[in-house]
Parts: sequence; structure tokens; C-alpha cells
Amino acid sequence: MKLLVIAPILRRETGKSKTFYQQVVKTDTQVEIVHIEKGPNSIETYYDEAMAIPEVLRIARKHKDTCDGIMIDCFQDPGVDAVRELVNIPVLGPAETSMLVANLLAPKFSVVSVLKNSGPMIELQAQKLGLRSRLAAAVGVEIPVLGLEKDREKSIEEIARAAKWTIEEWGAEIVVLGCTGMASFATEIQTKLPVPLIEPASTTMKMLELLVELGLRHSHTGLYMYPQLDKIK
Amino acid sequence: MKLLVIAPILRRETGKSKTFYQQVVKTDTQVEIVHIEKGPNSIETYYDEAMAIPEVLRIARKHKDTCDGIMIDCFQDPGVDAVRELVNIPVLGPAETSMLVANLLAPKFSVVSVLKNSGPMIELQAQKLGLRSRLAAAVGVEIPVLGLEKDREKSIEEIARAAKWTIEEWGAEIVVLGCTGMASFATEIQTKLPVPLIEPASTTMKMLELLVELGLRHSHTGLYMYPQLDKIK
Amino acid sequence: MKLLVIAPILRRETGKSKTFYQQVVKTDTQVEIVHIEKGPNSIETYYDEAMAIPEVLRIARKHKDTCDGIMIDCFQDPGVDAVRELVNIPVLGPAETSMLVANLLAPKFSVVSVLKNSGPMIELQAQKLGLRSRLAAAVGVEIPVLGLEKDREKSIEEIARAAKWTIEEWGAEIVVLGCTGMASFATEIQTKLPVPLIEPASTTMKMLELLVELGLRHSHTGLYMYPQLDKIK
Amino acid sequence: MKLLVIAPILRRETGKSKTFYQQVVKTDTQVEIVHIEKGPNSIETYYDEAMAIPEVLRIARKHKDTCDGIMIDCFQDPGVDAVRELVNIPVLGPAETSMLVANLLAPKFSVVSVLKNSGPMIELQAQKLGLRSRLAAAVGVEIPVLGLEKDREKSIEEIARAAKWTIEEWGAEIVVLGCTGMASFATEIQTKLPVPLIEPASTTMKMLELLVELGLRHSHTGLYMYPQLDKIK
Amino acid sequence: MKLLVIAPILRRETGKSKTFYQQVVKTDTQVEIVHIEKGPNSIETYYDEAMAIPEVLRIARKHKDTCDGIMIDCFQDPGVDAVRELVNIPVLGPAETSMLVANLLAPKFSVVSVLKNSGPMIELQAQKLGLRSRLAAAVGVEIPVLGLEKDREKSIEEIARAAKWTIEEWGAEIVVLGCTGMASFATEIQTKLPVPLIEPASTTMKMLELLVELGLRHSHTGLYMYPQLDKIK
Amino acid sequence: MKLLVIAPILRRETGKSKTFYQQVVKTDTQVEIVHIEKGPNSIETYYDEAMAIPEVLRIARKHKDTCDGIMIDCFQDPGVDAVRELVNIPVLGPAETSMLVANLLAPKFSVVSVLKNSGPMIELQAQKLGLRSRLAAAVGVEIPVLGLEKDREKSIEEIARAAKWTIEEWGAEIVVLGCTGMASFATEIQTKLPVPLIEPASTTMKMLELLVELGLRHSHTGLYMYPQLDKIK
Repeated sequence: MKLLVIAPILRRETGKSKTFYQQVVKTDTQVEIVHIEKGPNSIETYYDEAMAIPEVLRIARKHKDTCDGIMIDCFQDPGVDAVRELVNIPVLGPAETSMLVANLLAPKFSVVSVLKNSGPMIELQAQKLGLRSRLAAAVGVEIPVLGLEKDREKSIEEIARAAKWTIEEWGAEIVVLGCTGMASFATEIQTKLPVPLIEPASTTMKMLELLVELGLRHSHTGLYMYPQLDKIK
Repeated sequence: MKLLVIAPILRRETGKSKTFYQQVVKTDTQVEIVHIEKGPNSIETYYDEAMAIPEVLRIARKHKDTCDGIMIDCFQDPGVDAVRELVNIPVLGPAETSMLVANLLAPKFSVVSVLKNSGPMIELQAQKLGLRSRLAAAVGVEIPVLGLEKDREKSIEEIARAAKWTIEEWGAEIVVLGCTGMASFATEIQTKLPVPLIEPASTTMKMLELLVELGLRHSHTGLYMYPQLDKIK
Repeated sequence: MKLLVIAPILRRETGKSKTFYQQVVKTDTQVEIVHIEKGPNSIETYYDEAMAIPEVLRIARKHKDTCDGIMIDCFQDPGVDAVRELVNIPVLGPAETSMLVANLLAPKFSVVSVLKNSGPMIELQAQKLGLRSRLAAAVGVEIPVLGLEKDREKSIEEIARAAKWTIEEWGAEIVVLGCTGMASFATEIQTKLPVPLIEPASTTMKMLELLVELGLRHSHTGLYMYPQLDKIK
Repeated sequence: MKLLVIAPILRRETGKSKTFYQQVVKTDTQVEIVHIEKGPNSIETYYDEAMAIPEVLRIARKHKDTCDGIMIDCFQDPGVDAVRELVNIPVLGPAETSMLVANLLAPKFSVVSVLKNSGPMIELQAQKLGLRSRLAAAVGVEIPVLGLEKDREKSIEEIARAAKWTIEEWGAEIVVLGCTGMASFATEIQTKLPVPLIEPASTTMKMLELLVELGLRHSHTGLYMYPQLDKIK
Repeated sequence: MKLLVIAPILRRETGKSKTFYQQVVKTDTQVEIVHIEKGPNSIETYYDEAMAIPEVLRIARKHKDTCDGIMIDCFQDPGVDAVRELVNIPVLGPAETSMLVANLLAPKFSVVSVLKNSGPMIELQAQKLGLRSRLAAAVGVEIPVLGLEKDREKSIEEIARAAKWTIEEWGAEIVVLGCTGMASFATEIQTKLPVPLIEPASTTMKMLELLVELGLRHSHTGLYMYPQLDKIK
Repeated sequence: MKLLVIAPILRRETGKSKTFYQQVVKTDTQVEIVHIEKGPNSIETYYDEAMAIPEVLRIARKHKDTCDGIMIDCFQDPGVDAVRELVNIPVLGPAETSMLVANLLAPKFSVVSVLKNSGPMIELQAQKLGLRSRLAAAVGVEIPVLGLEKDREKSIEEIARAAKWTIEEWGAEIVVLGCTGMASFATEIQTKLPVPLIEPASTTMKMLELLVELGLRHSHTGLYMYPQLDKIK
């Protein structure tokens, strides 16, 4: 099995390595990470997302016949719907995947993400997925993606504090990290919380492997129509 | 007042002309239509939409300081959220606008659009907008956007037939045309229906003018954060 | 075009003048304001509303063939549904209109109104309209309608304070004034808020003009059946 | 205990008699029926309802200190909210009461009422009550209230046929008669249905007795503020 | 009429006596209380509930032909759905019954129960019933069922305090006691609250009597299929 | 890793074997299947479920310290909530798991199950999970669990026919088999459908393995309180 991770951001030093994903999957599952070549350094707005998606789609078109599943490595799930239209293999985004796994474990979940705008953005994602009534709270800690690694201690502390607020004030019984760039903090944050923590990148990668093994993917009979590539110039 | 229509498709002969919009607005309101220069001929999938949005954003950036409001001329509302992040003037998409106006007039509305995939796509738009419970039905007539003008009679007949089905079987009391490319058929279709018909392009243009006159626009305090343009390469 | 404003309260000195509405519409649109002759001085309860509606209906019956659209000038939208049954022209209430316009601009809106009971009352209006999930909060400032003008400074301050509370604590990204009697404060309150403010009277009047120009109105095929006037004694 | 039935229609020969209600309550519970003196013969529209409510309120004011509970005898629940504002005793309408009792007995209920417009009208009532997701269907048989008694056989047959349609096609497991004027048909209709039938007038009367005995009524702290009677002329 | 109360807990000294229920019903209605003989002392978890239900079903099977209605005396409504499958008489649980009665009286209700876990548990009950949007808050006071009687003063004070919190912070206009073991405190708690209080045991018993008198019960056509008793060993 | 499958039915010849599950998981994951010793042959009603759960709990108590995750092998998810209270390892039921996986792949899913009563039963499960708006339809084919294997051809044909009905009439884009006893038909049914099919037993087993590997489980801070075992006799 070969799984493709499309990273919808320019390559940078501190990003999650192939090792991160390889440790998550089975020994005979291969993971390939491909970064976009044009577009944003990080995704925090709809604008960033929009500027990354054409490259995500280019990568998906190029690799779709040589891999068994695609994960898009950003919590805004950029291009997930459009990539699904293109391909016949499962395609997952971390937000949808993590929120659904959260619902398997608790009656109320929360999401802690980067900037303040991610709060309403994630509420809309949950609303679209039909899970709005189970989202206790979604909140940003006002640290940008590229700032997360700059002061690890502070990032961990702020994320844990926000997570606790969603637990104590809003009744969350499970917390989702709302940015795949927070993966390296997950273990430390978990030790500070009284409830389980979902790290979205590893969760999504494993779910992708699960879907491939079960032979499950989306349908092309309804929402996900094949696009006509030749009408685009 | 100057209003910008961003047409997220390549220019073609049969498209709505400036005259169409100019007749809708006040005599002293200027309308400018700008087409994308790269991207799709028509938008029917998430893929098409994604390939159009970067150009939509380029146009919005270029014109944002010389116009008073922006309308994006496609029922998938491509790039509406991202353009809002960029600008301090009102930005409307025809789907959101028409669905909200429909709710001002009836307890249940329906949408008749082009291809079959537009049904679930529009259901998700309504869901995101919180209006799912008031959408009687959303349905495509299986005529592609570029086929609409090829056989006007058939298009009108099929759209009217589908509209009646949503009225009789699902209780719609108002019908929204689910594609701005259907504008030239609206008058004829209306004569065949027992309930009012909303033509989204003219409705959105007028609503944009209304918002400009009232000085209303979106906020940048929550969902719509200003993007950092310099982080995108 | 001639638009009728039915004021469901007895005429008083400090009410909105014809000038208010005339400034909002096009120069060749005529506005007529007709007050009820029996009924309440102000509307703050279901009881007040019920005592005003028969007069609202009498006025609507009298003027329905000589105007092009009707607005009922009170945020409880008194009699909107009943007037729609009577007429073939668009009929708008400020609550429904403002709440729908708010949803065109932000993912979450709030309403600030007069007395404490308006909070749950507006929640029910939003619920009926299908927009409950997008209402951040509805709150009264505990100043009665007729007290609003008595201490302008205090009214403005209290409304702005309540609006800020809905923004900061409940995530509202747009605020609706929940009483058409607050129209004269709107400009001053707007200067105190970080998000846009919707003044319902002017917004509704302009929306009515828009609907008339687009030829849109409600249907009589479903909810709004013509009443049989002769069965009422 | 003394219970007041306000009949929001002019008195007519064929109406439910005091005997009807007296048989439903305990032997020491007194029932008084008071009809409005001005207003409609029957209630089928919002207009009819609006023209009846001031009289309903007049009757409620007159009798509120000499009875223990008030029922308003019409499935549109005319004036229920306004009467609650006025009084300190329980006030029930048949629609709210029957729909809530239906939910005590089945996961999905339906309502069969008089004219076609009652379908969307009842959907809105259920929506306001938060019960929209449990309403299988609401439908009118296109027989006006005053026509129900004219051809009893036909009325019974049409109502039973519509009820079966909601059971077979929409999964209703309990049916509510959507008009208190159908009370005399209930026993016969029940024999034709495979699921229980709720007759709203008797159900509401008994529920009112139950509330009085339990000392339960609405609060005046929130939605139901006392109206200021002296501000109405 | 003979009504059966199944107490899904082992008999203990301080439980509600037959006298409690007998005072609630009509003089000629007989009440019988039957306790389970194996199972929990009190029900606070899903585990407790599961261990009580087989005994509840045994009792229901034994008595179903000699009584006219069954109430299960615990706010988790243990076994209500399964008992309904078995019998042709009405079966009520206090949670469903009280929550529906609460909705007859106020736009928002709250529930105050025993331990902290009852908060999310009751939210799920309301969600299943379709009433989630009308539940202001559900909260436990962290006193176990068997601790309620140990310090009456403290229990009353804590329950009243929590109830006030749901009224002031969450807009509840009626409060439901979330445990039938709180019945003896109801009168005292009511004196401390500005809104009505629903005591679930008496409310459910009276509602059961009401349903029996109206001849209403659940259907066996859909959700509640008769179980095949002989397939269980 | 050792995973426990609790089969809440008496052992029978035709049940899924250990081989079935062992093929689904990794080579070094051990699966143990334990059947209840008292209770039903099959689960089709709430009654059946209730009679199986005490045994499910006995088995969970016995094995909880010697396994890493528990799956309960029945689409009614019997005892899932109660077992979660008992243990510190992940616990899954096939209904919740399959419905959440379905939402990862399509905007609308359907469930095809055994008897007619499973339709409303599954609707309530989806409602509790917050996914009601995404359930296109849930339907039973009127073949009891123990009848499924008796006429394989007929079972496959009826299930496929019902699945197609949910696709064509209700817009399902993915279908879930609503009984783990249908596992052996999944491959054949899939060949007859135009959309993907989810077989719940294998999907749940793999998801359980995924959760164990990620170290994820439910919290004991809210809904899932540890039960006090000594209070049960």
C-alpha cells in the first residue's frame, strides 16, 4: 500500500517528516509526502487555502494512479472535495476525520487551533458535517502556525489552557488539536489534560490506511462528479 | 457607486452582458464585469471552482480599492469567503444571497440547477448557512452550463418541470434558479410556475447595491481575518 | 413605486418621520406612513402585538391596491403573515428581514432589543425562520420603547454595552438593533462597535424596494391562503 | 376547580358542547365555554386568527380571576402566548399540547388538518416548539372547518386516508387530528387506523386539569412579561 | 383503573411510599409499587440502569395483564422502550414525561440532577427526544441519590442554587428535578425559585392516568415491535 | 494487542468465526470472541438488547484487564455506554462506528437492516449521535436475523433492492449494512450497488485496532462515570 500526503504548504525545515507518518502506519505501507511548489507557507485563512488548492489538485492528478489513498495535511481540509472528484481512491482531510473520530469517543468534543478566526471557521466545518450540536467549543490560541515552534513551551501551555477551558466551561470530553502543525506537541499536551487528545495528522493517516484496507472510498454518483479537465485553460 | 462583477469563468459570447446588470441597478451605479483569464469555461464541480478562485482573488486584489462592492457571478459562490478576507467592502455570492431572499418570502424554497451533483452541493451550502430545514429540495436537470443555451426550449421546459416537482412533491413555495447562467430564461420559466421564481444574478446585484447604500459589510473581527499576502509564493 | 409603512402603534411626536424613510429609498419612490388608530402606544409583548394586528389588517385592506409593497414597522413583525394572506405584493417585517440580511454578512449575529422578554421572543423568531443556530445571543437592555428617547445618552450606552457583550462572549460578528424605535441611535452606536450594525427600519424599507423592483413576492399556493373576509363578523 | 374554554369563533349550533368537556374532566371540575362575540366563524388562516385574538384576550381578562386554567379551543393556538402574559394560571392550546403528548408515545407523529395551508402552518408550529424533526408529515384534507360536519362520511374517510398516507409513506406512528372541530369523528377515525389517534380538544382539556392539580403554570420571568394594559387605546 | 409503578431499585426505607402516588391520582385509581429484587440500590450510571432493566421487564411481564398503565420510577427512564415493546398499555418514564410537560410551559427548561455525569446524560435524552434546542442546561449537584436524604438542608440548598444558575445564566424559565428521589424536597425548593418547578414522579403518574383515561398508548407498527420471548434463554 | 469481541447472543453454528475478525486485523493482533451464556439468540428489539446487556457487562468485567479494546458485535450497540463506564480501554459498537465512517465518505448515508422496526430505531441512534440530518433513510427488509442465512440469495437480493431504493429515492451516496449478521453477504451485495457499502463488523474491528494504536479512548470526566459495583445485588 502506498499513501500520499499532500502538504498544501511550501516545504520548510520544521515540518512533519516522512518518519512521522511512517511510524504511524504498518511496516509495509509506504508514505510519500509531496509539498506544493507555489502557494502559502502556512494556511490560516480562506485566502491561503484558495491559493494552495490548485497545486494540491496538480499533485493529486499527477499521483492518483500510483497511490492507494490521499491525505491532505492541513486542518482546513483544503481541496478535499475537489480531489475526491478527481480520484477513485479514498481522500481524507484532518478536520473531518478528527471530528468524526472524536464523536466515536465522547458526546461533546472541542477543537483548539491557532488564530482566533479558526473558531468560527471550525464551527462552520462542523456545521457542514452535521456535527455542530456536538461541538462544545472551537477556539484559537492566537499563535500563528509558523509561531508554534518558536516557543514550544508557550505553545504547549496556551493550547493546554485553552483545552481546559473548553472542558471546564463547555463540557468537552475529548479535545482535538485544530492544526496538523501541532503534532509534535501532542504528547506533552496530553499529559496536562484530564481527557483524551486527538492529534489529527496521525489519526487521519491511520484512518486512510483503514479505508484502503477495507476497500472503501467515496461514490461518484452524487456530490463528487468527475470534473472535465479539458474545459479549464 | 461602482460595483464589480467577477465572472469566474473565461469570457464567452453568450455570457450575461454588462447591459444585464446595468438595467438592474440605479442609473448612477456603474457596473464593471471582469472575467478570469485562466481557469474554467464553466463551473460545475468543486474542481472547476478551485481552479477559478485564484484568479477571482487576483481580480479582487486589483480592483478592491476602486469599487464599492463585489459580486461573484456563479451559484457555487466561488471565493466569496476568501474575497471577504481581503476587502472592506461587501462581497456577495448568488447562492447565499438568493437562498436568504427566498426565506424572506416563503417557509420552504427549492433550487433547480444544472447537473445532478448540484443537488447535494446546494444542500451543503444551505446546511452551512443554517437553512437546511427550509430547503424543500435541490435538484439538477442534467443539462451542463454550456448546454443551457444550445436548446433554449428544452432548457426552459426541463427547468420548469423540475421546479414543479419540487413544488408539488416537496412543498416548495418559491423556486431559486441554481445557476446564474439561467438568467435569460427566468421570465419564461416564471410564466410556467404557480410560485415566484428568484433569478440569482439580478437579485444578488441589487442586494449588493442595497448593502453599499446602507454602508453594511462583513466584519474582520472573527471569521474573516485579513490574509498575510507576503507569505504566499 | 409607492411603499406603505404600517406603524402598528398610535402616532406620537418622536416617531420616525416620513423623511426618515424617504431618504432611504430612490427619489421616485413614494413612502406613505399610516399609523393604527386604536391599539398600543408601543409594542413590547404578545398582548400589545395582538391588540395592534386587527388595525394593521384594516390598513392593509384599505391600501393594498394602491401601493406596491408593505412594511410593518415593528421588530415583532406584527401581522406580517396575516397581511401576506391578504395581498399580492411583498410584505416585510423588520425582524425577519434584518436577521436574514445579517446572515448574508456573518456566520453569527446578535440582536439587542428593549426589554428582557425580547430575548426569548427573538430566539423564537429565529427558530421559526430556521436561523436559531446562527443567533449568537438576543438580549434586552431593560429600557422600554417609550423610554429610549428620554435619555438618549443612556440608551446608546446601554445598547452598545449589550452589543459588545454579545460580540465578546458569544461570538457575534454583526449586531442587529432589535427595535425600529432605535433608528435614530444607529449611527452613534455603530461608532462604538467593532462590527457592523444593522438598523432594521431602513434595511427593511430598502429590501422592500428591492423586492418590488425584482417583481418578487410570496406565493398563495401554500402557507399564505387568501382569507375569506365575509366569514368574520 | 373551574376551567375556562375560550372558543375563538362565533357560537354555532354544531360546535362542541359543554357536555363534551364535562365528560372528559373529573366530576367536581367545572367547565365553562365562552365564545367570542366578534370575529370569525372558523379559523383557517393567520388573518382569521388575528381577528379572533383581541376577543380571546378580552374574555381572558374578564375571567382570569375566577377560573383555574384556560384552554383556547382551536388548533392554531390563537392568543396562547398573549393570554399567558396576562394571567397566573396555566393556559394551553391544542396544537402545542397534542404535539407534545404525541412525542410521549412515538418517535414520529403526523397531523391531519383541514385545508392545504395547514400543512406548512403546522410545520412552523412544530419548528417553533423544537419538534420539527419528529413531525413525519402535516397535511390538510381540503375540507374547510365548516364543511366537516356537512358530509360526515366523507370527512371521516378523507381524514383516515390522509392519516394512513402519513403512516405508510412518512413513518408516523401516531396521528394528531389538526382541528378541534374534528372531535366528533375521532372514535370512528380511530377504528380505521393501525396507530393511536390523538383528539386534541379532550387531550388539552385533561392536560389543563393535570397542570392545575400539579400547581404548574408558566413563568413571568422571561418570555411572558405582564403587559401594560393602560398603554393601549 | 390500576397503575403500576416499577421501582428499578431495591426496596429501601426512605423511598417514596404508595401514599405519595395515591395522593396524586384520583380516589378510585389504584397504585401498586413493585421493586426489583435483584439489581442496584440506586441508578446513577448506564451500568446501574442495565443491571436493573431485566428485573423491570420481569415485573412488566408479570403484571402487564392486570394493570392499565406502567410508570418506571427513575429519571434515566430505564427500560421504557423495552417495556413498551412488551405491552399494550401506556408506559412512561419520568425524564421524557417531565421534559415534554416543561415544553408546554416555557421556551427553555433546565434539569437539575444528582451527579455530574447526569448533565451529559440528560442532554442525550433531550437530543433523542428532539428537544435539545430547548434545554437551557442540565446539571448535577454532586450528591448521590442515596446521599440526598442524609442532609436534607444541604440537598435543598444545592439543588436550588444550581436551579438558579440555570435560570440566570442559561435562561431557563422552568426547572425539572432530574431525579425522582428528590420528590420530597420539591415544595421547599419551589419556594426558593422564581420559576415553576416540575417534580417528575408526580407529574409522570398523573400523565399516565391521563393517557389511560384517553385510551392512548404507543403503536406496535414501527419502533415498538413485540419481542419473541421464546428466543431468549 | 488483544481485542475482545463480545457477541451479545448465544453461540450458534452460523455466526461469524474468529477467522473473520483475525483476517481483518494485523497479524500480531489477537482477537477473542466471547458469547453471552444467557440471553437472546439474536437481537432485534429493545427487549432482546436489555436481556443481553447484563451478560455483556459480566464478560467485560471479566476480561477488561486482559485486553486492549472491546467491540460489541451487534448493530444495536448493546451495552456500549455501560461498558465504557466500566473500562479504561476503547469500546466500540458497530452502529456508531459505521455511521461515523460513512460520514467520512459521503454527504448522505443510508442503513439497510433486518426487520421493519430497525428503521426508526436506527433513526434514533443517528439522532443521538447528531447525524440525523445526514441519514438519507434507514430501512428493514423484513427478514429476521436468524432468517438471513436460510435463503442467502433472497437475503442478498432484498438487501440490494432496499439499498438501491435509498440511493435512488433518498440520495444516499454510501450504504451501511445495519446488522453484523450480514457480514458474509457484503461482497456480493457490493457488486450490485453503484455506491460503496460499509460492512459494520470488519469496519468496527479495524477502527478498534486504530484507536488502540493511537492510545485513544473515552474520558471518565463526564458522561462515563465509573459505576459503584458494590451497590448492585
